[in-house]
Amino acid sequence: MIRLKFDIKLSYEIADSASDFIFNIHAAQTHHQVVVIEQLYLSQPVTPVVYTDLTYGTRYMRLKAAPGPLTVCYEATVDISHHFDSPENLAEVPISQLPSEVLPYIYPSRYCQSDRLGKLVIWEFGHAQPGYRRVQAIQDWVRRRTSFLPGSSNSNTSATDTIIEQAGVCRDFAHLMIALCRAMNIPARFVTGINYGVDTKAGPTDFHAYVEVFLTNRWYTFDPSGISPPMGLVRLGTGRDAADTSFATVFGSVNSFSPVIKIEAIDGPTNGFTLPRYCTEVLSTHAAFVK
Amino acid sequence: MIRLKFDIKLSYEIADSASDFIFNIHAAQTHHQVVVIEQLYLSQPVTPVVYTDLTYGTRYMRLKAAPGPLTVCYEATVDISHHFDSPENLAEVPISQLPSEVLPYIYPSRYCQSDRLGKLVIWEFGHAQPGYRRVQAIQDWVRRRTSFLPGSSNSNTSATDTIIEQAGVCRDFAHLMIALCRAMNIPARFVTGINYGVDTKAGPTDFHAYVEVFLTNRWYTFDPSGISPPMGLVRLGTGRDAADTSFATVFGSVNSFSPVIKIEAIDGPTNGFTLPRYCTEVLSTHAAFVK
Amino acid sequence: MIRLKFDIKLSYEIADSASDFIFNIHAAQTHHQVVVIEQLYLSQPVTPVVYTDLTYGTRYMRLKAAPGPLTVCYEATVDISHHFDSPENLAEVPISQLPSEVLPYIYPSRYCQSDRLGKLVIWEFGHAQPGYRRVQAIQDWVRRRTSFLPGSSNSNTSATDTIIEQAGVCRDFAHLMIALCRAMNIPARFVTGINYGVDTKAGPTDFHAYVEVFLTNRWYTFDPSGISPPMGLVRLGTGRDAADTSFATVFGSVNSFSPVIKIEAIDGPTNGFTLPRYCTEVLSTHAAFVK
Amino acid sequence: MIRLKFDIKLSYEIADSASDFIFNIHAAQTHHQVVVIEQLYLSQPVTPVVYTDLTYGTRYMRLKAAPGPLTVCYEATVDISHHFDSPENLAEVPISQLPSEVLPYIYPSRYCQSDRLGKLVIWEFGHAQPGYRRVQAIQDWVRRRTSFLPGSSNSNTSATDTIIEQAGVCRDFAHLMIALCRAMNIPARFVTGINYGVDTKAGPTDFHAYVEVFLTNRWYTFDPSGISPPMGLVRLGTGRDAADTSFATVFGSVNSFSPVIKIEAIDGPTNGFTLPRYCTEVLSTHAAFVK
Repeated sequence: MIRLKFDIKLSYEIADSASDFIFNIHAAQTHHQVVVIEQLYLSQPVTPVVYTDLTYGTRYMRLKAAPGPLTVCYEATVDISHHFDSPENLAEVPISQLPSEVLPYIYPSRYCQSDRLGKLVIWEFGHAQPGYRRVQAIQDWVRRRTSFLPGSSNSNTSATDTIIEQAGVCRDFAHLMIALCRAMNIPARFVTGINYGVDTKAGPTDFHAYVEVFLTNRWYTFDPSGISPPMGLVRLGTGRDAADTSFATVFGSVNSFSPVIKIEAIDGPTNGFTLPRYCTEVLSTHAAFVK
Repeated sequence: MIRLKFDIKLSYEIADSASDFIFNIHAAQTHHQVVVIEQLYLSQPVTPVVYTDLTYGTRYMRLKAAPGPLTVCYEATVDISHHFDSPENLAEVPISQLPSEVLPYIYPSRYCQSDRLGKLVIWEFGHAQPGYRRVQAIQDWVRRRTSFLPGSSNSNTSATDTIIEQAGVCRDFAHLMIALCRAMNIPARFVTGINYGVDTKAGPTDFHAYVEVFLTNRWYTFDPSGISPPMGLVRLGTGRDAADTSFATVFGSVNSFSPVIKIEAIDGPTNGFTLPRYCTEVLSTHAAFVK
Repeated sequence: MIRLKFDIKLSYEIADSASDFIFNIHAAQTHHQVVVIEQLYLSQPVTPVVYTDLTYGTRYMRLKAAPGPLTVCYEATVDISHHFDSPENLAEVPISQLPSEVLPYIYPSRYCQSDRLGKLVIWEFGHAQPGYRRVQAIQDWVRRRTSFLPGSSNSNTSATDTIIEQAGVCRDFAHLMIALCRAMNIPARFVTGINYGVDTKAGPTDFHAYVEVFLTNRWYTFDPSGISPPMGLVRLGTGRDAADTSFATVFGSVNSFSPVIKIEAIDGPTNGFTLPRYCTEVLSTHAAFVK
Repeated sequence: MIRLKFDIKLSYEIADSASDFIFNIHAAQTHHQVVVIEQLYLSQPVTPVVYTDLTYGTRYMRLKAAPGPLTVCYEATVDISHHFDSPENLAEVPISQLPSEVLPYIYPSRYCQSDRLGKLVIWEFGHAQPGYRRVQAIQDWVRRRTSFLPGSSNSNTSATDTIIEQAGVCRDFAHLMIALCRAMNIPARFVTGINYGVDTKAGPTDFHAYVEVFLTNRWYTFDPSGISPPMGLVRLGTGRDAADTSFATVFGSVNSFSPVIKIEAIDGPTNGFTLPRYCTEVLSTHAAFVK
């Protein structure tokens, strides 16, 4: 069991008229991720509405803020329990046996044009050992070929752009890995989170994007950008790609400032928690049928 | 009440090895569309698995077929009851009041890059009267500017391509209208169907794609291609765009032949059914909270 | 006659190994633009090679610089004489009568995909009065629809992107106008320069990009961005689009700093020079057959 | 010496009003390709104007045709003498030493977005042996990865599309190889022609597209599609990419039919001509300074 404590501070300056926001900054509530305690602070006297998606435990908070500054602070302590597996046990699931609710994740989406990549994946991964090894080959291909380079991509950058330009940030690594998996008919989806233990080369703690791939009967965690141990990831949102899972969607004339994020791990033999670490087992925090 | 009877015949030639198929050719089962009778014929002795999406009543049929020819025939008689409204009554819903399950339809998707169109929609539709009139202005803009031209687009064509090239088929008209609505923060989605009363200029009866837009508290039907009366549409699939709602997704080395589709309307004063016709009211066959 | 004096200062930091540069910062030498005096300063003891393109009077300077800092300063005083015409006199030239050397400018290029815009230009400009009035309609369309917004585009942004996103800088305005003219079979090309009298909203003096369109028998000057009087433009490079006319092409691992540019107009009744101003005549500084 | 005899028959149906055509179907006239005899037939009594580009020997024919059918037949016999080199002798030329007239061919163009491929070429070819061997590695990469598949691409398909979709026709193979060479700062250009000895898999004789790369001091011939021996190529047009070298550019409402093309080789010991064959030497038919 891992216990992580994080806080997120978002700051905005709203121009002339009241503006709507949809946030996805609450820790997801799942069987594997229990929210021990959480607290929300809003600098304006507004009443947010929080909606919880029952399939994923994702929480969306909507609010309408008045002109002027808006600060949103959220902090939470979560306990994450991982399901561990050996790579050898993880198989690709034939189309005919995929659970119905998994099917949407084999289709293309805004940033993951898997429909265009059929020949490329056969060429690159057609001879790889099916199952976990093929997914790992895809992840390695993305990681080896792509430079982690902040500023090299923008909100319009998609998986096909990243194949061409070979540079991006965590979101681009995730989109590319997802598109390649789907083109091989392996369900894959996009997860946003905060992660503990980010390589300092990647800069200060920020929102992170990683990948879940469906093998055998669970969703397994992959971090193609390789900047942090998958064990240290807190799940916020789950969707097809970044279009589904923005941490903040802003409607109106609003100036946004950089988020400020902190995360720490609680550990020690006395309380039974361990620190996130890189490991050789494969991790999962989401089964097929229950969140 | 309208009664439509249609049949679909799909033909394939499967090469070397058994291939998976996911079909979405069953009539959707909703409160507004009741399947009176239906029949499925498969030329191979395979057992299909049909999964019904409870939100939309969409039915997906999966099967694995052996090498050689495969014919799939489906016929159904459906009764469609329309909800009618006056344009004056239909308002745009503020972000803060949109039902949660409607939210996914304001985000961009594979073929509807609404995230890139924010300035364009303000320029073109920012001064239109909000509500139904604005949606109608969007539909008119798409229809006036775009030539219905079979062969001018392909499976990679998206809304931004159609703005540039001003030509396409029903699917492209639908993608463009959806992208523009979403860029205005008006939820919009993609529906596939078979439609009665297609303009003969558009060729023989084929699968059709049209649009549903969320106003006030229902999904309203629009056919930006203008090739048929919205009243004559049978719903098959509902999704964000064509990536979600293909009538057939084929996995493997398979040769596909052109679908053969027929549709007729059952009418007459004796049985109480009326013929689909163009009308000035706005139609809906899907409320917000029940399918 | 107009006399302009400008200087350009470019600064680089060259990493490990000697790097090649191709500059296009010299004032073009044409019948209409005479270089009165010019001076070049290089901070490294390298010998540049300058090549003059005889068709356009464009001058390209190549040099190989050693690791460390490199500063390139160029200053020049040029006398520009304008050919003035009334809009009424300027006609589109039929394809069959276009001078052969003008033909390349009706074809698409890297950033001007005129081949995709055939339907759009017929829709928007098909009914405009042919000749200068149509070109002006194209310029007005670009200027009205597009926001001048530094940071909204990048080196990959092309004319079709600018139609979609409706924002850009002078280079994007120029690419879009060129693409639209070519799609109407009106030859159009890209000119880089320094311009006197830039609107201060557009920031400090910088390299500028504008458009030349071939009408009757000359190339006429248009500035679709509208940020400066066309009379104040000094020509540096001439080509199909920005791919042909970069002020600096750098080969190797080099850090580039922002250019520093100054320009002033020499005037006064005693010396016979006038100040650049907005005027109703149409300007040309390039005939068809002589530069 | 090789003697080839070919004929081209183009057919059009011109609608309402007289339409302009620009053809590039004449055999180029160069030092290496001598036109022994040629003949042109036009089904309408129009007088074409032929313009010869002095740099490349390309001939452009313009004409205006009346409504109704138009047939254009051209036949020619050409003698081609090849310059042969050993791969070992062919070096990449440093930027600083490239002849000025070669410089345009290191920049991106409509279908060859070399500016986006800087990282990809370093990744794939950065460690290849410079010179001919690197160019050959690029050609092999393109040929191995890309399926020759008529119908898989269209007039909007560019080099970056072909990297993603890994399918195309000769024009797409050529665009991709050119873009990769330019991204490595190796000048490369597009040549159209008719070729003798096409692999029958590629269908009946058609217009062909191939590549010239500048090494040491000449342009060397490469056929990345691999469908014919480079020795059997007749040069028609030379340019940056397909945007420059269309065999027919049509202005107006015209219906085009498929070209009909035939080619044969004249050989035999008595006349001194040899048949085109695959060979291990590298071929050139264009020096740097003379056509």
